[in-house]
Formats: sequence, C-alpha cells, structure tokens
Amino acid sequence: MSSALGGGPAVVALGGGHGLAATLSALRRVTDRLTGIVTVADNGGSSGRLRTEFGILPPGDLRMALAALCGDDDWGWGWAAILQHRFGGDGPLAGHPVGNLLLAALWDMEGDQVTGLDMVAELLRARGRVLPMANVPLDIEADVDFGPTESVRVVRGQTEVATTSGRILEVRLDPTDPAACPQALQALEDAAWVTIGPGSWFTSVMPTLLVPELRQALLRTPARRALVLNLVNQPGETEHLTPEQHLEVLAAHAPDLHLDVVVADTQATGDVRALERAARSLGAELVTADVRSPTHPGQHDPAALADVFVRTFATGSPAQA
Amino acid sequence: MSSALGGGPAVVALGGGHGLAATLSALRRVTDRLTGIVTVADNGGSSGRLRTEFGILPPGDLRMALAALCGDDDWGWGWAAILQHRFGGDGPLAGHPVGNLLLAALWDMEGDQVTGLDMVAELLRARGRVLPMANVPLDIEADVDFGPTESVRVVRGQTEVATTSGRILEVRLDPTDPAACPQALQALEDAAWVTIGPGSWFTSVMPTLLVPELRQALLRTPARRALVLNLVNQPGETEHLTPEQHLEVLAAHAPDLHLDVVVADTQATGDVRALERAARSLGAELVTADVRSPTHPGQHDPAALADVFVRTFATGSPAQA
Repeated sequence: MSSALGGGPAVVALGGGHGLAATLSALRRVTDRLTGIVTVADNGGSSGRLRTEFGILPPGDLRMALAALCGDDDWGWGWAAILQHRFGGDGPLAGHPVGNLLLAALWDMEGDQVTGLDMVAELLRARGRVLPMANVPLDIEADVDFGPTESVRVVRGQTEVATTSGRILEVRLDPTDPAACPQALQALEDAAWVTIGPGSWFTSVMPTLLVPELRQALLRTPARRALVLNLVNQPGETEHLTPEQHLEVLAAHAPDLHLDVVVADTQATGDVRALERAARSLGAELVTADVRSPTHPGQHDPAALADVFVRTFATGSPAQA
Repeated sequence: MSSALGGGPAVVALGGGHGLAATLSALRRVTDRLTGIVTVADNGGSSGRLRTEFGILPPGDLRMALAALCGDDDWGWGWAAILQHRFGGDGPLAGHPVGNLLLAALWDMEGDQVTGLDMVAELLRARGRVLPMANVPLDIEADVDFGPTESVRVVRGQTEVATTSGRILEVRLDPTDPAACPQALQALEDAAWVTIGPGSWFTSVMPTLLVPELRQALLRTPARRALVLNLVNQPGETEHLTPEQHLEVLAAHAPDLHLDVVVADTQATGDVRALERAARSLGAELVTADVRSPTHPGQHDPAALADVFVRTFATGSPAQA
C-alpha cells in the first residue's frame, strides 16, 4: 500500500451498503490507493443475526465493499461471487452470505478486525483496503416526526430507522463516542481525496460523520472532499427530501464540514439553482453528469462515475500541490 | 495433475475422518500425485446438520482431507487453519467449521460437487485432490449383537453405529448401490498404489469398500494395495477386536480384495504371528514399524508413516514395472 508503488491519488471513500460499493467500483478504475471506511451500525438481516450471535461488527457492508474491490481476473471475480453468495432455504444458515461467515470466523480467530479484513482482501486480491469506521458495533438512534397528531419519538436500530414511516429529523450513534479504527484515521490523514456517499442518507452516510475521532480526522485532513448525491429517494428514509435538503441534513449533522465538490446526476438535481446555492454554502462546486446506469436506473454507472472522479481529481488537490 | 508433471507414484488413499487425514499428511511427503477418496456417510455434528439443512454430502471428512493436503507455506497453512476453525458459542452457527460452510456454499453455487472441492483445493494450493466416494449422501446400517439376552438388531446412522454398546457384525450402505464419483473411479484406474485406512473401521474404512462401482474399480486396478491398521481400538466400534480380527472384518466386507502390504505399528500388533498369518491369507506382507506419534500416541506420526510408504513403494508396483 506504499504511495510510491500505487497509481493514482490516495482516496478514502466513506459510506456503507450498495452506495459505497458503487463508489468503490468507480474509484477502482481511477486509483490503486483506495480505502473504504464503512458504517458499522447495521442491525438487520445476516449482519444483525451475527451481531446477536457473536457480538461482532456487522460484517455485511464490509463484505460488500471488499467484493467491490476484488481483483480484476477470474480469481478475484470468482471469489467475490462466492463471498456474496447467500445460503438459501429456511434453515439456520438461510440468508447468510458466505463472506459474512468468513469475516465472523476470522475475527474470532485473529481477534483483530483489521487483520481479518486484510486477509479477505488478500484472498480477493483486492485493489484497496476496507476498514470499519469504529472498532465496536454501533446502533443508530433517530428523532422521528410522526406528524402533527403525534409527538417526535426516538426510533432505534438501523433497520427500524431506514424503514420508519415518519420524517427523520436527526440521527445519533450509540455509543456516542466509540473508538475509531486507527488505520482509518491514518488513511484520512494520508488521503488526497475523500468521497462521501451515495447511500442511505441517514443510516449509511450520516453515521460516518458522527464518530467523533473520525469526524475530527475528516475536518483535519488536507484532502479535498467530494460528496456524491443519490439518484433516487428512498422510501421512508428520504422519501420527501430534495437534493438540497440532503445537503442541509449533512450540514446539520456535521456543521463544520467543508466540501469541495458535490456530484449530482443531471436528471436528479431537482431545482439546479437551489442545489448550486446549497453546495456553495458548504464551499463546494456542483458537478452534474450523466452517472445513472442505463440498465439499472437506481444505481450509479461505475464507468460514468469514474469519469467524473478522473475529471474532478485532475483539478488538483492540496495534498498534491 | 498430469503424471508427466507430478513427482512420486500416483497414490489413492481411501478412508475418512482423522485416519485419512493422517495418511494424506504422510503421503504428501512422498508424492505430488495424490487423491483422497472419502467416505460420505457421516450424519453427526456439523456435517449431519448440513445434510439435514441442504441435503448435501456431509462435508466434514472432505474438508479435513483437503486441510491435510494444504500447500506447504503460510498461505496454505493459514487457509487450512481457517477452514478447520469451528464457530463457538451455542447459537445457530456453533460447531460449524468454516470449511464445511464454504463447501456447502460452493456446491449450491456450482451444482457440481467435484468443482467445489477442486476450488477449495485451489484456495489451499493443495498437494493433491479430494473426492467423495459417492455422489450422494449415504447412511450406514449395521447388524449389531447386543449380547446373549437380546437378539441382533439393526442400528442406523454413522454416529449411532460408531457409538453402539453392542458388537458390530456387519455394516451396509443405504442406498446400497449409489453412483460413484467418476473422477474417483478414474483415479483408482490410474493409481500405482492404493492405501486403505487407518480410521474408524466400520464407519469410515469399510464403507469405502461397499460402493459397488468403487469396489469393482479397486478390484480391477493394477495398483498395489496397502492397508494401514489402527494404533488403538475405538470404544464401541472396535473395542474388543484384535488386529487380525480387523483383517477378518475387511475380508468379510470385501471378500475378493487382495492386499499387498499390511502396515502395523510395532507396539500394536498384538499376536504378531497371528497377524502375519491373517495378512498372508489376504495376499499381503506384514510391515511393522514405529509409526506412533511420540506426542499424540493415538495418532500416526506423519514422518514415520511417510518413511514406511517410501520403503514400501520402493519395492515397485505392477503399474511401474
């Protein structure tokens, strides 16, 4: 992972779930010096069951990020497919992806979470590294507005918040000040660029800004910061939010955070003037491009997003100046 | 696996469990052209649970044989340790070794069992190949004598037979004529030497002689045949059997089988004259040597057993003549 050996700028991507996997799929085309820092607050599905059974970090988003970085050959793609494969049926193993079980076993054997993640990265011949945003499993708590006839209530759990019928006002982490992953802090310090998003805004993207040590590192890094907006709103979580409201939510959760670039799909800007103003209020230039997958319109096209990153990174960064 | 590339004679090892793993650990020091053919009748522990959940071959003995063949470097030993690692606790995953779950997933993805086994062998950089003795999971049935006051009863299931309090008279497979693994038949045809045992005599070793197609291939092969006797009797299964009675059991289950060599530990021959006679009645020479592990007296020492194989194989085989 020496900077002397890698090609392209050192990039750190923050987020979780499919959104982070999309960013990493794009960034792997742009640089070999790539670190994904992943939200570890999932409490649903296989990850939730493994948290309950073993008290470990939820492995699902970490596994997905690793698979997105798999080596570009039959071995890499083959093992990525295996780690993503979910057991079927309705027995005790049903729904567990192989990679979640492998991470759980490696953490049990090695004790150290980063060692286990690096071993899976080695298996996949991954083009980068994947790290957790904290060293302990977290829970998300949200203040949710259920409308004029009900008071604001606290909803707890990533799954519960992501699927709430109310309007999310704010999310918090429990514990509020978990130990960050030291290697993640170092990666932020060494980065030339940091990307944030896309993804489930309140339950995957905002949490990466809420670990105090990580937020300090993000505020302190000389890296430039690019935010990637979502293509579509998510039922429940962000059903009624405009793109500029997404930026307001970000500013509310990380008040001192300065951005350099906000990337939006041309067709998903809404009121483009309002979005430009909102971006500018965070210090950022709005970059619009056709980044939607032609075949899966809800997802970013990795090649198109990579093009945006190439052009954006070419503007130079403080770390490279 | 080309014979032109491999070093040492082509060897096929029949058996299951820790006994087969011990033989493979010895044989890997002697030849690169190695195939383990594994009993697939286990119905206990993790293998039994996975059979029940997915209707697959019991993976445990296959996993153990693969781990015994792992590459002789940090990668090979490291991944062997991972595949052998069992989940702890008392939840739904407790007791499952990682390798069993990986095999179950690969069989689900690939459909073909041999493809999945070869993929794990590739992961381990294995020094040989591991194949199932049949393409379908099997059950063991035994006629068991519970003493003069009770009649002979049928006991069903590998675990149940292995732990019976009665005296086992005969074991059978259910189904009685399962499809053999074609690659296993081919390996027997191409072999210079075949080893049988050691291991749980009625539940791991005898079953390999009971698949009709495999037995025919074993009778037909030009390879020489070496039987490795156990070091200690197993409570229940072979508690009261002398070494020569082990040979009588083998002759009863495979009446036409001719052996060339019977290997016994010097301290475990019992009445050596009687054992010599029993070996000779099967066509075999008795070879005695100190093959007991100094640190684990119930197990074969791989280096010592390898020495015996080197000397035995040096006597030449019909296939090499």
